[in-house]
Amino acid sequence: MSTAPIRVTVWHEYVHEKNKPAVAKMYPHGMHVVMKQAIEQTLGNLAVVRTATLEEPEHGLTEQVLAETDVLTWWGHTAHKRVEDAIVDRVHQRVLEGMGLVVLHSGHYSKIFKKLMGTGCGLKWREVGERERLWCVNPGHPIAAGMAKDYFELEHTEMYGELFDIPTPDELIFISWFEGGDVFRSGCVWTRGRGKVFYFRPGHETYPIYYDENVRRVLGNGVKYVAPVTGRSPYSLEAPQIKVPLSPIPTRGV
Amino acid sequence: MSTAPIRVTVWHEYVHEKNKPAVAKMYPHGMHVVMKQAIEQTLGNLAVVRTATLEEPEHGLTEQVLAETDVLTWWGHTAHKRVEDAIVDRVHQRVLEGMGLVVLHSGHYSKIFKKLMGTGCGLKWREVGERERLWCVNPGHPIAAGMAKDYFELEHTEMYGELFDIPTPDELIFISWFEGGDVFRSGCVWTRGRGKVFYFRPGHETYPIYYDENVRRVLGNGVKYVAPVTGRSPYSLEAPQIKVPLSPIPTRGV
Amino acid sequence: MSTAPIRVTVWHEYVHEKNKPAVAKMYPHGMHVVMKQAIEQTLGNLAVVRTATLEEPEHGLTEQVLAETDVLTWWGHTAHKRVEDAIVDRVHQRVLEGMGLVVLHSGHYSKIFKKLMGTGCGLKWREVGERERLWCVNPGHPIAAGMAKDYFELEHTEMYGELFDIPTPDELIFISWFEGGDVFRSGCVWTRGRGKVFYFRPGHETYPIYYDENVRRVLGNGVKYVAPVTGRSPYSLEAPQIKVPLSPIPTRGV
Amino acid sequence: MSTAPIRVTVWHEYVHEKNKPAVAKMYPHGMHVVMKQAIEQTLGNLAVVRTATLEEPEHGLTEQVLAETDVLTWWGHTAHKRVEDAIVDRVHQRVLEGMGLVVLHSGHYSKIFKKLMGTGCGLKWREVGERERLWCVNPGHPIAAGMAKDYFELEHTEMYGELFDIPTPDELIFISWFEGGDVFRSGCVWTRGRGKVFYFRPGHETYPIYYDENVRRVLGNGVKYVAPVTGRSPYSLEAPQIKVPLSPIPTRGV
Repeated sequence: MSTAPIRVTVWHEYVHEKNKPAVAKMYPHGMHVVMKQAIEQTLGNLAVVRTATLEEPEHGLTEQVLAETDVLTWWGHTAHKRVEDAIVDRVHQRVLEGMGLVVLHSGHYSKIFKKLMGTGCGLKWREVGERERLWCVNPGHPIAAGMAKDYFELEHTEMYGELFDIPTPDELIFISWFEGGDVFRSGCVWTRGRGKVFYFRPGHETYPIYYDENVRRVLGNGVKYVAPVTGRSPYSLEAPQIKVPLSPIPTRGV
Repeated sequence: MSTAPIRVTVWHEYVHEKNKPAVAKMYPHGMHVVMKQAIEQTLGNLAVVRTATLEEPEHGLTEQVLAETDVLTWWGHTAHKRVEDAIVDRVHQRVLEGMGLVVLHSGHYSKIFKKLMGTGCGLKWREVGERERLWCVNPGHPIAAGMAKDYFELEHTEMYGELFDIPTPDELIFISWFEGGDVFRSGCVWTRGRGKVFYFRPGHETYPIYYDENVRRVLGNGVKYVAPVTGRSPYSLEAPQIKVPLSPIPTRGV
Repeated sequence: MSTAPIRVTVWHEYVHEKNKPAVAKMYPHGMHVVMKQAIEQTLGNLAVVRTATLEEPEHGLTEQVLAETDVLTWWGHTAHKRVEDAIVDRVHQRVLEGMGLVVLHSGHYSKIFKKLMGTGCGLKWREVGERERLWCVNPGHPIAAGMAKDYFELEHTEMYGELFDIPTPDELIFISWFEGGDVFRSGCVWTRGRGKVFYFRPGHETYPIYYDENVRRVLGNGVKYVAPVTGRSPYSLEAPQIKVPLSPIPTRGV
Repeated sequence: MSTAPIRVTVWHEYVHEKNKPAVAKMYPHGMHVVMKQAIEQTLGNLAVVRTATLEEPEHGLTEQVLAETDVLTWWGHTAHKRVEDAIVDRVHQRVLEGMGLVVLHSGHYSKIFKKLMGTGCGLKWREVGERERLWCVNPGHPIAAGMAKDYFELEHTEMYGELFDIPTPDELIFISWFEGGDVFRSGCVWTRGRGKVFYFRPGHETYPIYYDENVRRVLGNGVKYVAPVTGRSPYSLEAPQIKVPLSPIPTRGV
């Protein structure tokens, strides 16, 4: 039973804060810093968290950084296309090897999420600041741990509505209700290779979403849930030939 | 309740038959012709079947051909890399729009299957001609319709063994037992967008797999199962903005 | 490819119509008659439909009736406890053998549904006549066939809200949005033995739910979807001993 | 992040040891004692383990014992019918409330497992001491943590073969290969209410199964995996009426 802390890297494109005053005011040091604090607040010494952003060399996701990352969280929106394919392939390979991935909000359209899902990942959206109520439909799930009641609310949100073009989630934890008449599968988990992927909907940049206590706790729970439990188990993209059968084959003389 | 026949396109790379005498002897007119006959035998006038191969212009998968295809079956092995990315993207888009896809045997490593799965799609393999027994673990499933007992056998096969690096199937229909000691998830279904994908393991080119009555029936059943039932429903990869809410939002005055 | 019509039995407790004038006015001949018509309207000559009610001998579900039923639909509310356990066991056995079951609205608390699910099957409810909007989250699914857009609406409904205490559905087709702030998994499919179970939420007795065209079509689609495709495949609740192995066991001399 | 140990109760019918000399020799103090040691060995101070058996008052599963149990493990075979229905209902209720349940080997036919599954839970079996090879098909799963390779073997086992009449598992972790030609879904997880259920196949009473290091580790991992993470969250079998909507309903004046 390992007690080594979960090594988390919070990735953020970090663009809106630089060119939108409203976002800069909401997140003066960048959303990634607030997300880092949220994870630290929830997980305490169970996690050590660093950040990485688009403008850093290799987007801050070098081979070494990824090799030392157990869980990567991903926020992107306006700059999905600026993420280099080679880095996406590198992250993809690491997820298959067992690294956990938490994709947030507009990250639904990131290259890495689409590559892992195999679908278009589109959805409907509307930005009128309406109320969202996230209902938990899997109350025993670790990601829902600590909820005071069956739902929690966000007073002002950008709406995301179905149809959300994703594969059927392996686990569905939250369904959102929106004031304007839409619903959304807001908390979903999939397994890909040895890794787990958690998509969590909240996170619009012009509302104080990552200051909300419920969002912060779910973010921390999600990081903990997708963290690999077996360490660095060997993984190969190759299809190995097994020349010697494990059991004798009497009918073939092998 | 539409009764229009299912328009099937059997795609085959059609390479082994040209450069391996043993394969040419087994399938003198190509494997695709035998697969076409198998589907016609199982589905009768419920289906109209044509073929397409790698060497044809656009690999035989023009916009028009795909627009007129309800279900595409895919066999490839040695030439996966020669399939152009643009054609793969075209097929991918059509699956998301609702076209059914049946991926066979070594097609597990095709570009289109990997793109739809989001994983590495590797497996173990061994070629000593051992016996395979396919157990049905979902006996009420349409793809298993017509099975005389709980399993069927193939006398000589190439072994495919776990770990098969795929996302958890939405539906698991067959698990294979191999004489040499391995197991394999041999019949799996996933939904991607509006389309269904069926992977079916049997099909090695040097054994008479596609002449086997059980394999032929499952192949036909699979084509029928993944055929779209709602016709050409609109699908978009875009994320549409919905400016006007469906329901009034009293707290926001919208 | 069998073309024999699906033999449907519409079961209804048929109590409210007799003691509540509002229900009697809405459904003068009983809800079951309207449901029968809805299925006939949707499926045409693909189905032959009869009805059965609580007050009939053996609740109208004799061994013979069930032996001649491919799909049973179930509506109950006030009289769940009056359904005899022996009849519930008989229906349960038939579902495991392959009979399809469509459970409607307040049938979520029926003995047969709880027995098949293994959970409490509770939910929240409210009766103020609010609007419901059913969003389709699986647009390629046969049960959603024929939908004109991504959702359909019911103007006046009794609300059912999460948490709906069910096992994770094998397939989730509809999620409902309610005006008063709740969501609900409104269209769910599970496999039990050789049989399929479809739960469909709409159906309150004081609103004209079963006259709604969308509800009628989904009801028919659901009947078609859960109909057995392989006929009466053998099924046993026993655990058979297999004394002779299928393959020789060289290490044990068997 | 609670660090309170998992309170485990190992339940065993404890009959074979008393009337079969071979079993008494294999497990002189009863299988439950060896299982208790296996869990303690794997989980160390993460768990505190006690035992309960059929012959104790209320089968050792009083209200108080269950109230103080986070995870219950269950081994039964010859005395399933002697377990009182009232105790089964009590255990069932506790699982729905969040207690984890680990069902072992012949426990597939226990009243509690059948009640939670909703199916017949039958299977095939053969007792010739053949070899079993358990393949892991979900290598990133916590229950598979610590496996040295892709599979582990048991030299002598009773065979359990498909069709295993269970609902589709929410998670499938192991598939067994048997020397005599059968396969089996040997490690399966389902959620029921707030509780998780893990079925693990190995465990025949005449072989030294619970002395095997791989089986012991999986048993401990399974206990840890199904342990509730949110403590005693409120659960009710009732369907509560919610008279006051969470959001105002403008069209209805509520």
